[in-house]
Amino acid sequence: MSIEDKDSERHRAKMAKRKAVQDKEVAEKTIEKGLLIVNTGPGKGKTTAAFGLALRMLGYGKKVGVVQFIKGAWHTGEKDAFATFGERIVWHTMGEGFTWETQDLARDIAAAERAWSKALELMADPSISLVVLDELNIALRYDYLDLGKVVDALKARRGDLHVVVTGRNAKPALVEAADLVTEMTAVKHHFAAGVKAQQGIEF
Amino acid sequence: MSIEDKDSERHRAKMAKRKAVQDKEVAEKTIEKGLLIVNTGPGKGKTTAAFGLALRMLGYGKKVGVVQFIKGAWHTGEKDAFATFGERIVWHTMGEGFTWETQDLARDIAAAERAWSKALELMADPSISLVVLDELNIALRYDYLDLGKVVDALKARRGDLHVVVTGRNAKPALVEAADLVTEMTAVKHHFAAGVKAQQGIEF
Repeated sequence: MSIEDKDSERHRAKMAKRKAVQDKEVAEKTIEKGLLIVNTGPGKGKTTAAFGLALRMLGYGKKVGVVQFIKGAWHTGEKDAFATFGERIVWHTMGEGFTWETQDLARDIAAAERAWSKALELMADPSISLVVLDELNIALRYDYLDLGKVVDALKARRGDLHVVVTGRNAKPALVEAADLVTEMTAVKHHFAAGVKAQQGIEF
Repeated sequence: MSIEDKDSERHRAKMAKRKAVQDKEVAEKTIEKGLLIVNTGPGKGKTTAAFGLALRMLGYGKKVGVVQFIKGAWHTGEKDAFATFGERIVWHTMGEGFTWETQDLARDIAAAERAWSKALELMADPSISLVVLDELNIALRYDYLDLGKVVDALKARRGDLHVVVTGRNAKPALVEAADLVTEMTAVKHHFAAGVKAQQGIEF
C-alpha cells in the first residue's frame, strides 16, 4: 500500500466508526413531538432563525402563524417575502415599537395583551404547524404579560404544534418549559465598528 | 397626581432618556458596507438564520446565491420554499453529505473545491446582494480547502456584497476577517431527551 492509500484507508476506517456512532445515536431517538423552542441571548439571529424555520415549514406545504409582540415597524423584508405564500402564513404585527419608542406603559401592556390573544388563537388553530411568537421574551421581561399564564398556555399546546419564542433575556420558567433553547452570543458586532443598520440585514 | 399617574410619568421619563441614548447611538453609525457574517457554535440556528437573512433580502426584491458545502441531501424544506422566488435565488448543493457518510477523503476534497468555484462565481455576479456559504466552516475545519485562499477571497469581495458563512468551529482567521460573528450555544437540546430529527425542524 502507498502512503496515500494508507491515509485514505485510515480516513475511511475512522469515518466508518464515526458513522456507526452517528447511526446508533439517530436510532435511539424515537420521540416525535411539537417542540417549544426558545431563541434568546444578546447576539443576532434569534428572529431570523425563527423565520428561517417558518420558511422551512412553508417549504413542506405547512401553515405557519406569526405574532410580533414588539417590533411594529421592523422586519418588513420578511413580511413581504412571506406574502408569496399567501394564506399559508398568518401574520399579526401587534407591537407598537420598542417601549422606549412608545413611552407609554399602559399602551405597551394593552398591545402585549392583544398580541397574546392572537397567539392563543393561532395556537388553537389545528391547521397551523408552527407559531412564531417574536419578541415575546421582551413582553415577559417588562411584565407586560403574566409569566405563569403564558408558560402554562405554552405547555398546554397540542402535541404536534411547534412554537418558537424569540427575544433576549428569556425567563427561567420559560427555559425550564422549553424543549430546545439556543443562546445567540455576539462574538463580534459591526455596530461597534460604526456600521449602521442596513436593509436586508437588520430589517 | 395619583400613584398610577406618578408611575406612568416615571416610566415615560425613563423611556424618554433611553430613547435619547438609542437615537444618539443610531446617529453615530454611518457606515454602509457589505458584511462578512459568520454564524458558528454548537447550537441550532446557524443555517436557519442564514436562510432567514436570504428570505429578508428576497423580500426587498434582491437576488441571493446559496452554496451548500456539506449537507447534500438536507434542507429540502428551504429549497422548495425558495423555489417560489424563481430566478432571484441561485442554489448550488455541492456537498455529498457529511464526511462520515461519504467515507472518501478525495471525493470530499473534490466536492469542496467544486463548491468553492461556485461560491467565487456567485460572489463575482454583480446582480447578487447576498451569498450564503452554508457549512463552509466544516470544509475549512477538515482542510478540504485552503484557509488563506478562502479568507483572502472573502476579504476581497466587492464593497456592497453581504456574505454569510455557517458551520461550527469557525477558524480564527475567518472570525478575524468578519464584521459580524454570532455563536449559537445550545442551552438545552431536545435530542438529549430522545426526540428525533423532525420535518420542518431539523430538515
